[in-house]
Amino acid sequence: MSYKDISHCKQLQLDAQIPHLWRLEVSQIPPGLLSTADSITNTSQYEAINVMDIPRTCGLLTSDELLITEQYDVRSLLGAIRERKLTAKEVVHAFCKRAAIAHQLTRCLTEPVFTQALQQAQKLDDHLQRTGQPIGPLHGLPVSIKDSFHITGVDSTTGLAALAFHPAAQSSPLVNLLTSLGAIIIAKTNVPQTMGALDSCNHLFGRTLNPLNRRLTVGGSTGGEAALLAMRGSMVGFGTDIGGSIRIPAMCTGLYGFKPSAGRVPIAGSQEAGSMVGKGRVSLQPVAGPLARSVADLGVVMAEIVPRTELFSEEGIPGRWFDSRPPSGKRKSFTIGILRRDGLSEPLPPVAKVIDEVAQLLRRTPGVRVVEIPVPAALSKCQGIAGRLMGVDGGNPMMDLLESTGEPLIPWLKGRMKRGREMTLAQVGELQAQRAQLEREMLQMWTSRGVTADASYTRDIDAIIHPVAPHPVPELDRYNAVGYTSSWVLLDYPAGTIPVRSFKEEDLELGTEMTAPVLGSWDKANRLLWNQKTVDRRVYLGSPLSVQVITPKQHDYELFQAMELIDRVVRGDAQVPAML
Amino acid sequence: MSYKDISHCKQLQLDAQIPHLWRLEVSQIPPGLLSTADSITNTSQYEAINVMDIPRTCGLLTSDELLITEQYDVRSLLGAIRERKLTAKEVVHAFCKRAAIAHQLTRCLTEPVFTQALQQAQKLDDHLQRTGQPIGPLHGLPVSIKDSFHITGVDSTTGLAALAFHPAAQSSPLVNLLTSLGAIIIAKTNVPQTMGALDSCNHLFGRTLNPLNRRLTVGGSTGGEAALLAMRGSMVGFGTDIGGSIRIPAMCTGLYGFKPSAGRVPIAGSQEAGSMVGKGRVSLQPVAGPLARSVADLGVVMAEIVPRTELFSEEGIPGRWFDSRPPSGKRKSFTIGILRRDGLSEPLPPVAKVIDEVAQLLRRTPGVRVVEIPVPAALSKCQGIAGRLMGVDGGNPMMDLLESTGEPLIPWLKGRMKRGREMTLAQVGELQAQRAQLEREMLQMWTSRGVTADASYTRDIDAIIHPVAPHPVPELDRYNAVGYTSSWVLLDYPAGTIPVRSFKEEDLELGTEMTAPVLGSWDKANRLLWNQKTVDRRVYLGSPLSVQVITPKQHDYELFQAMELIDRVVRGDAQVPAML
Repeated sequence: MSYKDISHCKQLQLDAQIPHLWRLEVSQIPPGLLSTADSITNTSQYEAINVMDIPRTCGLLTSDELLITEQYDVRSLLGAIRERKLTAKEVVHAFCKRAAIAHQLTRCLTEPVFTQALQQAQKLDDHLQRTGQPIGPLHGLPVSIKDSFHITGVDSTTGLAALAFHPAAQSSPLVNLLTSLGAIIIAKTNVPQTMGALDSCNHLFGRTLNPLNRRLTVGGSTGGEAALLAMRGSMVGFGTDIGGSIRIPAMCTGLYGFKPSAGRVPIAGSQEAGSMVGKGRVSLQPVAGPLARSVADLGVVMAEIVPRTELFSEEGIPGRWFDSRPPSGKRKSFTIGILRRDGLSEPLPPVAKVIDEVAQLLRRTPGVRVVEIPVPAALSKCQGIAGRLMGVDGGNPMMDLLESTGEPLIPWLKGRMKRGREMTLAQVGELQAQRAQLEREMLQMWTSRGVTADASYTRDIDAIIHPVAPHPVPELDRYNAVGYTSSWVLLDYPAGTIPVRSFKEEDLELGTEMTAPVLGSWDKANRLLWNQKTVDRRVYLGSPLSVQVITPKQHDYELFQAMELIDRVVRGDAQVPAML
Repeated sequence: MSYKDISHCKQLQLDAQIPHLWRLEVSQIPPGLLSTADSITNTSQYEAINVMDIPRTCGLLTSDELLITEQYDVRSLLGAIRERKLTAKEVVHAFCKRAAIAHQLTRCLTEPVFTQALQQAQKLDDHLQRTGQPIGPLHGLPVSIKDSFHITGVDSTTGLAALAFHPAAQSSPLVNLLTSLGAIIIAKTNVPQTMGALDSCNHLFGRTLNPLNRRLTVGGSTGGEAALLAMRGSMVGFGTDIGGSIRIPAMCTGLYGFKPSAGRVPIAGSQEAGSMVGKGRVSLQPVAGPLARSVADLGVVMAEIVPRTELFSEEGIPGRWFDSRPPSGKRKSFTIGILRRDGLSEPLPPVAKVIDEVAQLLRRTPGVRVVEIPVPAALSKCQGIAGRLMGVDGGNPMMDLLESTGEPLIPWLKGRMKRGREMTLAQVGELQAQRAQLEREMLQMWTSRGVTADASYTRDIDAIIHPVAPHPVPELDRYNAVGYTSSWVLLDYPAGTIPVRSFKEEDLELGTEMTAPVLGSWDKANRLLWNQKTVDRRVYLGSPLSVQVITPKQHDYELFQAMELIDRVVRGDAQVPAML
């Protein structure tokens, strides 16, 4: 069967899961969503439309449903369910409905599981009614997951036609863990073809659109999740990240994304079809993590997941989610390093400006010390090694899958993906040895005092701020390299995205071009997103500008603390000095 | 230059570092140590002689030196130096001298660094004198390291002639870390040819002998370390372990050995010549860890190393060395699982008996719950996967090194080692995927309640007791498989050796053969070490019988706690219930 026929059947299956009462009128849907194939290739049809308000204005959601989906954060929603101010069922119903609306506006879903979700909610309500106790700490929380995770009986296609209509035999450990906590999965969400692209676009489900601006990419690979969360169609979403696949879509949609160190959130049993068997174990290991609408929301779910991962998933490591310093060691001050660039692509002016603004705000915060971090020579090499490790299998298992149904490459992958040779073990060993060398050299980034005679360092930098990408949220199919994000996977440093502010008129700097010399091919490509001959900068107006926060390997709780601090500073929260 | 000439030069270099005043008379040295070549092949010359008392009786050590080397554990020795009851220099002098004597009786050293050690001790004494402060928490502690670690300016041959006279350009992170803590490295110690054998025997340094009984193997690959420590020629030793190389020599010499999880003790910069570049990163990762004469001694050094590894070594992970449970979570009882066998080799009677004795003692201990662990089906597969991962490079880089100087294989390796093919990346990926599957299945071993509906387990087993090997300490060149130890490296479970008691007359069971059916080829080989037609069991008399203790991945501090508890129970310490 050709990919077109499979896609057609899959669309029918998906549409059938959206109840008629939850459907928008055709007139309420901006153009570009009616044909899957068209959504992928005909990008000129997308205007700079923001659809964020449509759920509120479309008339489908009741005032109670608007309240449920808009007025709670994770903690208060859980509290309301626990205290029986809301039932799990009404909460899940409201979110499923809103998710359906979000999907009609952005093509964000792949597998809605609304029916099962509502049944599960009923079970939880019964349990609470009967026992007076919630089933777990996330009792009734509506969550969504990237299509790559398995739910028993549901497809895990990751948008590949060849994988459609082969429902999973068992759920992924993450799904089991979330369910055991009382969370309710309401849907799986869209990804790019091959999951190795930055636009969440494939021939089964079409192109997921950015609800903030349809001319801009929603990012990937956890792009469907980002669109859904931005539109408040779910409370928390779970994605995976190897090159930036949690942090990039968070950046593109103004969300918070948390890429933990390996072993913190179960990733086992995530879709591996299309990759060499065991690839993650010999090359670069993807990690799983959450996206949400606040740092606090990320914290609530991580606090419950991190200590339990080792009980659900073989790659789990023992974890805590609290400050483990003895009381005498209580933080008196916080040192934040500013790493302005990676040495390969010079950040475009608005990106550089936002980093600087955050640095300035931090400098004015009592108890916070800010230091400039020189670009480590090793950092400029990380992106290359990460890229080569991602390609150790030569892409052949994926190409085989695509060709089996005649599926063509999506625009972003054309010219970027082709069959290569599987590397030899010795070649991969050599890459891994180079990686170890980079890890060793990068240790020194965490001290502002230099390395001691005994070749150790005294870490005095708690966290580092860095761009998420060297450019603002680009137009469709124009996202460039992922070096600003992939390097931290290579090093297994936890890293998160914090939205700072919107792109404003004064960020346009119309009439002014960058004068810094071009560093090389990556930098050259990046300038195309700013040069007035190659882009209309006005497309960026209103898009989110974000920063990335990074801590050393396995210091995940410290990343959370740093994100909390920086986010409060950015939001002008007067509580900051008190929390230190 | 042929390996014989290189070996000759190396012996001269080694001998030159042993001061004349520290030399035993020829008459004090039992036969079998005068020729390197002869020590390897002519095993019939070794009688069941115990040389443990010779340092005390030989007349070379003064009564003060005997006191220093025999009357202290790590904590009290550090205290005595800190309180200036002893100088670092007199301590180091006493241990260097005793190490030299131990070497003359067992061939345990490869690179004595006595001169540097005494200089370093003088520096520390001066520092303490001048500042009143020790230089670090291990100020003045004499330690020794396996030959595979680098010390600037010293060879790291691991017994390979091809690597001799190429001094290291920089020290390993472990050496830097130990030095920064104030420990003083007095010597590097012998290993087997290729480090992939169980008798510490090679053509550069000859065969290290077991000081307890020269007919029995000292084990490997950290065998020189074990002989040195058993003879009290050092306070703590550091080895590496991939198949059992810390735990096996500890078992062979009645010591305590601690194989941590990866990332706890720096192993980076340990000798990798003879292996494919980056091998540990794509196949099985060896780990570094300590050997010592008590659990407490292990604890003192681990408490200082574990929290600092991430500052010295790229593979380090953040670590603590204290009970991180909140006070309310204080342990009320301890559950120990008894895993009597691995399903491939049935433990020989004395090994099974010791496991049972320890289980009985634990059952009688208030606050301790003992449960029998059924052999997990997955466990029987671990040894095979571990073995194949150790051989991914086909042994060719090592064979190249050996052949470059015409070095023949040592007896244990003959018939076991030959050139093979480097595996393809896809083959190694497949092995790693199988490993992940085994890790997943093995999670269930940690519950006595079965796995829940959500495929997780509630861990209620704190630690597991298991044999170190299915046989007692065997004769030279007769150690069989390493499945009882290598499986826990495959799973990255921390595991340690505790000596329990000596082999006694009643353990001989003369006239009785095992009746259990033979399980397969591994089991068949193992029976040869008990069948009265193939072994004279009396050779085991007086040899140490040990048990292995295991905890889940990265639960290293819990392993220490479990070893402490079990060791006290074994020694009949009345304090046990109080510590729970």
